[in-house]
Amino acid sequence: MKILTTGGTIDKIYFDANSEFQVGDSPLHECLLEANVTFDYSIESVLKKDSLEITEADRQQLRQKVAEATESRILVTHGTDTMVDTAVALAGIAGKTIVLTGAMQPARLRFTDAIFNIGYAVATLQLLGEGVYIAMNGQVFDPANVRKNLAGQRFEPVRPG
Amino acid sequence: MKILTTGGTIDKIYFDANSEFQVGDSPLHECLLEANVTFDYSIESVLKKDSLEITEADRQQLRQKVAEATESRILVTHGTDTMVDTAVALAGIAGKTIVLTGAMQPARLRFTDAIFNIGYAVATLQLLGEGVYIAMNGQVFDPANVRKNLAGQRFEPVRPG
Amino acid sequence: MKILTTGGTIDKIYFDANSEFQVGDSPLHECLLEANVTFDYSIESVLKKDSLEITEADRQQLRQKVAEATESRILVTHGTDTMVDTAVALAGIAGKTIVLTGAMQPARLRFTDAIFNIGYAVATLQLLGEGVYIAMNGQVFDPANVRKNLAGQRFEPVRPG
Amino acid sequence: MKILTTGGTIDKIYFDANSEFQVGDSPLHECLLEANVTFDYSIESVLKKDSLEITEADRQQLRQKVAEATESRILVTHGTDTMVDTAVALAGIAGKTIVLTGAMQPARLRFTDAIFNIGYAVATLQLLGEGVYIAMNGQVFDPANVRKNLAGQRFEPVRPG
Repeated sequence: MKILTTGGTIDKIYFDANSEFQVGDSPLHECLLEANVTFDYSIESVLKKDSLEITEADRQQLRQKVAEATESRILVTHGTDTMVDTAVALAGIAGKTIVLTGAMQPARLRFTDAIFNIGYAVATLQLLGEGVYIAMNGQVFDPANVRKNLAGQRFEPVRPG
Repeated sequence: MKILTTGGTIDKIYFDANSEFQVGDSPLHECLLEANVTFDYSIESVLKKDSLEITEADRQQLRQKVAEATESRILVTHGTDTMVDTAVALAGIAGKTIVLTGAMQPARLRFTDAIFNIGYAVATLQLLGEGVYIAMNGQVFDPANVRKNLAGQRFEPVRPG
Repeated sequence: MKILTTGGTIDKIYFDANSEFQVGDSPLHECLLEANVTFDYSIESVLKKDSLEITEADRQQLRQKVAEATESRILVTHGTDTMVDTAVALAGIAGKTIVLTGAMQPARLRFTDAIFNIGYAVATLQLLGEGVYIAMNGQVFDPANVRKNLAGQRFEPVRPG
Repeated sequence: MKILTTGGTIDKIYFDANSEFQVGDSPLHECLLEANVTFDYSIESVLKKDSLEITEADRQQLRQKVAEATESRILVTHGTDTMVDTAVALAGIAGKTIVLTGAMQPARLRFTDAIFNIGYAVATLQLLGEGVYIAMNGQVFDPANVRKNLAGQRFEPVRPG
C-alpha cells in the first residue's frame, strides 16, 4: 500500500510562533504505529497544503505520482474542501484502487475523527476493486455523486439513493 | 448495522476503588460520535467479560443474538484472547456478515489501537459478503486460519499465505 | 477562586468551516472537572482574543473585573505573546493575588502543556501573597523581569538571577 | 528538585499479555517534557507497587532516600490508598520540603487527573517551606488531618476547618 499525503486538516499542527494551525508533517506514520498494523506500506508527502490552495497543476502532479506507483492500492490523505475535485482528477488510471480520506479535526487533537477515518479508509482500500473512492463519515462515496456539507460537517450524496 | 459488545480490553475502564482495570460500559457509541459517522447503527451490550472468561454458553447466547438480529451486518467487539474461538462459534449463520474486532489497549487510553480498529472493522463489515471475519492489525483474517501472537501483540495467519 | 479567561492559545479550537484554529469556549471548566478538584471556583469569560489583539482598553476592563471581584485570588488565562503586558497592567490592586497562565499548545490537543500549567497556576495562586505573578514552564515569574522567548517556546527571566 | 516514584495508579500501564493494568515505568519524565518545564529535576524509581502493597520496610527505604538526597525539595508520586501513611512516615526530616501526589486515573488515560496533579504538586513543592504535604484534588493537605474518601474519589480533611 502506498500512502500519499497532501496536507489538509488531518495534518494540521499548531504553531505557537505565529499563533496558527498549519499543515505540518503528516501524523500518518505515528497513527499506523499506534494501531500496530502489520501490512506493508510506504508514505510519501506530495503536498502540504490546505485543500483550497491545491491547484490543477498540483492535481496533475498527484495523478502522475499515482500512475507511476508500483503499488496498485493508493491511499491519499487530503483536505476535505476540494477532496471531491481531486478524486475526479484521479479518475481512469488503469490498475489502481485509490481511496481519499481526511478529517474535520486534526489527527493531533484529543478528540478527532482522523484516526477512525484512517482505519476505515485502509480497509476500503484493501477490499475495493479498481477505481477512485472517497471514504468519510463511515461511508464510501463515488466521487461523481458526493459533496461536502460544510454546515453539517459531513460528506453526503448529491442524489440520495 | 448492529453492534454487539462483549467486553474485552477495548472496553476496559480503570476503577480506582479496587485499583483495577475492569470491563466497563463500552466506548463504542462515544467513538462513533467522535468519528461523526452518518450510517445507521444500534449498539447492544451482550456480555461484559474478559474473553478468557467467556463460556460456551455465552457463545451460544451471542450466536442467538446474531441469528435473531434484523440487520444483516453485525459488528462484534470482543477480547482478543478468545476472539478466534468466538468467531468459529459464529460460523454458518445464513444471510449474515459478521466482523469481530477488539484492541490490545483500552479505547480510553491516550494511545490505543482501538479507534483505528473500529474504523477498519466498520468498513470491512460494510464491504464483505456473508461470512465471519476477524479484523485486527489492519488486516482481515479468516477465523479458520488465524491466531493471536501474544508476545508479538498481533494477529497472524497460522499458515502464512 | 475566580477564574477570568481572555482567550489565547490555551482556548483555541479548530473550526473546519474556515480551516482555522480560533479562540473558542474555554476548556477551563472541563479541565477542572477532569482533575476532580474540590476547591470552590467560578469562571468568567472576559475576552476571546489572541493576545496580540488585546488592547489597552481590554486591559483596563480586565483590571476592573479583578478589582471588583469579591474573591481575593484571581486566575487569569491569557495568550502568551502579551501576557507580560497584561500582568504589568494588573499591578497594584490592593488585596488581590493574581496569577496569569496560558499555553504554547491548545488544551484540546492530545499533547499540550495546558493541563500541567493550569494545575501549576492554581497552586501558585493559592499559596502566594498579594501581587501579580506569571506561572509558565513550571516556574513563577515576576512580571517586571520576564519575557517570552518565542524561538525557545518558553518564558525566561530578563536578568537571570 | 528530586522526584521519587513509587508506583500507584498514576504509573499504571495496561499489559495485554495478562489483561491487567500494572505499575509500569513512570510517565513523569514524559509528562514534564510535554509541559515544557524549565526547572532542573532528576527522577528516581524507588518502588513499583500498588500502595496497598507498600510495607513499613519500603517506607523506611523511601525515608532514607529522601534524607540522603542532596536536593531540599522532593516530590513523591504514590498510590492514593496509603499515601497518608507514607506521608506520616516521612515526617521530621530536617531541611526537606516533601510533597506527595498521585492520581485516581492513570496518567496514560485520555482522561486523567494525573497531569493537573503533577503541575499542582510541583508548584506546591517549590513554594512551601520545610515539612510534608499531600497535594491532591487541587488542595494541599496536612498528613495529620486528611483521609482518602474512596467512595467520593477524593482526599478530604478529617476535621473540616
